[in-house]
Amino acid sequence: MKNKKILLSEKEIPTHYYNVVADMPNKPLPPLHPGTREPIDPEMLAPLFPMELIKQEVSTNRYVEIPEEVRDIYLKWRPTPMYRAYDLEKALDTPAKIYYKYEGVSPTGSHKPNTAVAQAYYNKQEGVKRITTETGAGQWGSALSFACKQFGIDLEVYMVNISYHHKPYRKMMMNSFGAQVYPSPSNRTQSGRDILAKDPDASGSLGIAISEAVELAAKDENTKYALGSVLNHVLMHQTVIGEEAVKQMEKAGDMPDIVVGPFGGGSNFSGISFPFLRKNLTEGTNIRCIASEPASCPKLTKGEFRYDFGDTAGFTPLLPMYTLGHNFIPAPIHAGGLRYHGAGVVVSQLLKDKLIEARAHDQMETFEAGLLFAQTEGIIPAPETNHAIATAIQEANRCKEEGKEETILIHLCGHGYFDLKSYDDYMAGKLKHHAVSDEEIKASLAQLDVLQPV
Amino acid sequence: MKNKKILLSEKEIPTHYYNVVADMPNKPLPPLHPGTREPIDPEMLAPLFPMELIKQEVSTNRYVEIPEEVRDIYLKWRPTPMYRAYDLEKALDTPAKIYYKYEGVSPTGSHKPNTAVAQAYYNKQEGVKRITTETGAGQWGSALSFACKQFGIDLEVYMVNISYHHKPYRKMMMNSFGAQVYPSPSNRTQSGRDILAKDPDASGSLGIAISEAVELAAKDENTKYALGSVLNHVLMHQTVIGEEAVKQMEKAGDMPDIVVGPFGGGSNFSGISFPFLRKNLTEGTNIRCIASEPASCPKLTKGEFRYDFGDTAGFTPLLPMYTLGHNFIPAPIHAGGLRYHGAGVVVSQLLKDKLIEARAHDQMETFEAGLLFAQTEGIIPAPETNHAIATAIQEANRCKEEGKEETILIHLCGHGYFDLKSYDDYMAGKLKHHAVSDEEIKASLAQLDVLQPV
Repeated sequence: MKNKKILLSEKEIPTHYYNVVADMPNKPLPPLHPGTREPIDPEMLAPLFPMELIKQEVSTNRYVEIPEEVRDIYLKWRPTPMYRAYDLEKALDTPAKIYYKYEGVSPTGSHKPNTAVAQAYYNKQEGVKRITTETGAGQWGSALSFACKQFGIDLEVYMVNISYHHKPYRKMMMNSFGAQVYPSPSNRTQSGRDILAKDPDASGSLGIAISEAVELAAKDENTKYALGSVLNHVLMHQTVIGEEAVKQMEKAGDMPDIVVGPFGGGSNFSGISFPFLRKNLTEGTNIRCIASEPASCPKLTKGEFRYDFGDTAGFTPLLPMYTLGHNFIPAPIHAGGLRYHGAGVVVSQLLKDKLIEARAHDQMETFEAGLLFAQTEGIIPAPETNHAIATAIQEANRCKEEGKEETILIHLCGHGYFDLKSYDDYMAGKLKHHAVSDEEIKASLAQLDVLQPV
Repeated sequence: MKNKKILLSEKEIPTHYYNVVADMPNKPLPPLHPGTREPIDPEMLAPLFPMELIKQEVSTNRYVEIPEEVRDIYLKWRPTPMYRAYDLEKALDTPAKIYYKYEGVSPTGSHKPNTAVAQAYYNKQEGVKRITTETGAGQWGSALSFACKQFGIDLEVYMVNISYHHKPYRKMMMNSFGAQVYPSPSNRTQSGRDILAKDPDASGSLGIAISEAVELAAKDENTKYALGSVLNHVLMHQTVIGEEAVKQMEKAGDMPDIVVGPFGGGSNFSGISFPFLRKNLTEGTNIRCIASEPASCPKLTKGEFRYDFGDTAGFTPLLPMYTLGHNFIPAPIHAGGLRYHGAGVVVSQLLKDKLIEARAHDQMETFEAGLLFAQTEGIIPAPETNHAIATAIQEANRCKEEGKEETILIHLCGHGYFDLKSYDDYMAGKLKHHAVSDEEIKASLAQLDVLQPV
């Protein structure tokens, strides 16, 4: 019998988050004030975030120590297992060696608790009593619910109305962890009431939910706001995944030629890849880091690098990023966590500098990949995760054609227990191809303010 | 930081199943033919089960070697982790040390694949092309779907009609693993057609689903039948859990005073407890093994030890067991896996001989226990699992009252991701107490044939 799992002991849990900014040849451009278009002062974010997270957001230090209290909670599921995917390799008849790092063992089934616990901790340290946040499909809301419960912080989650009704299990999970969940738009905020006045049945959007959560945090000094991806500090917290993965690959006596992670806002991909990218930047290795995105929301492969807003409404600072335009509305694919118009600032700069790669996959291809993975490896992956598997399968097939024994590491960021309906739709032939034309992207980008600097 | 997890390496995976029959002071009474009431010849079961499983069913050997192919598949999730429940201990303010062994990391989220993989393997060895089975809530059907996929065996699952419609996610999971799932009663069998002729909307029952699966297996020599609990060989396969747990407790430098597992038909409880019971029977230790059952289906605490049928219709051999009577219909509690009228033969004999204990819990108490567990430990347990947690909490509270530092081991047999609706009902105050009166039990037992020998 061959070893399938590469496990770390609890003593081997990472002690530091890795901040890739320290090693970037070109540092990210600064965020700009949406009005003045001048670089913003980090202090402006103080009403929304605890000071320690603001410091991390702009830090250029290579490492940030993980507080012992955070590591102690991580031990509930970390270090997470790495697997060698022997049965997938066999099914593909590939000479490539495929590994996967599995984050689905976390309390809420994805990588999101890695940053949720850290964010809850820093809020607690600064006396915050209540946190507000938004959630779409519910992964982030679930993770923060668990995290806030650990520190006795009250949590209000504004969940996109249509998801609130379509994904009742996610809401129930948040409730089980003690959070209050409200469909957004709600009548608890001015932003929500304004929308409900016009349309009492508004289906909501992540943009609206963000507005509600931010409004509440801004007006109460005991309340802060938390975000689950995109921002630098969020990406940095997720590097615990890659730090473990580096150690595990070393234990396996191997090192990846290719690291692949799904791409939504960036935290998922960054989590697995940045510690490998560090090897490229500081040790001269040449590990290919590939971000896998949906063909229906291809900001990395078809978007433009320019300043754009992080939200739909245009309230956030202007951020230098690959974007499809903040008004771009992606098709309703099942991988809800990847339906975001832009990419985090750090990842965008890395892609611009060709230090990472990107690849887009059609929804049908991703479910075919996910189903093959489930039937061979025995884990049903989340639809988001299937994008990385699709890229890995493409690379494994290339290895077969070229007769190369390369090593591929997949970030298996979450399980698909709550997403079985999407597999059912796929098997029943109900899923659609969701291509977005170059014209649509051009039209969306054309709506951006042409005067903004890039 | 204290160590939370006690992990075994892949090399430490058990090599043998443990057969407690070898060490029982009183061996189980034989099953009787339902017609002649004479002990049955094991060969009579050959149309339904492969010979190796029939041999295991009647074996008195202490150990059965686990085939390498089976262990190789087990490595996809085994050895499973053991945890020290520090946060639950803290919440209970108890001097007791609480550990839990977690089987929710399996491909289908419970302990069921342990026997499903073994059964699929032995069927494959004997050339079986197709397996039929029944499933209620879907845990067993999911596990066997995964297992059959690993060996390329076709699987037909007859799923109780009402569950088929109420638990669509379980059906989708079975489909994802390549199984065919039919609502039972179906028009694919004579048993099903007979019932549908009388009532086209029949909601079905486990008894009917068993009849359909057995009918199909009996009439086709390439098709066999598989059962997920109750039988001796099923209980034996589950002992991989307890074998690992013994090693893990030794690694932790500890040994339980109390081992507690939920009780449905017996495989769950037996899996964790039999290897500890072996220590009592062969080394003179005094580890209390407690089976936790629902107050609404209290066969162990309020049933009678006597011969009864394993199914509702009365097709199976007569088995010597604790039973509420095969016509007993338990209340519709959420812990569907514990709604069975009787107890496996081996467990029944052990209880009769006072070598194990049993305790019943009301549904409300079990959800209170499960929610506390989720909020402290970060794992949302299955409703079945909550029964064992409720017993553990009672014992931890007793330890507090008595000032005793005892060690308690819980079998955390599955997660509750598919059962969040039941938590939602509990939190919304919609759950009911489901007591069954002594008169009801007496009336059900009175229907049994008084002439049968005990």
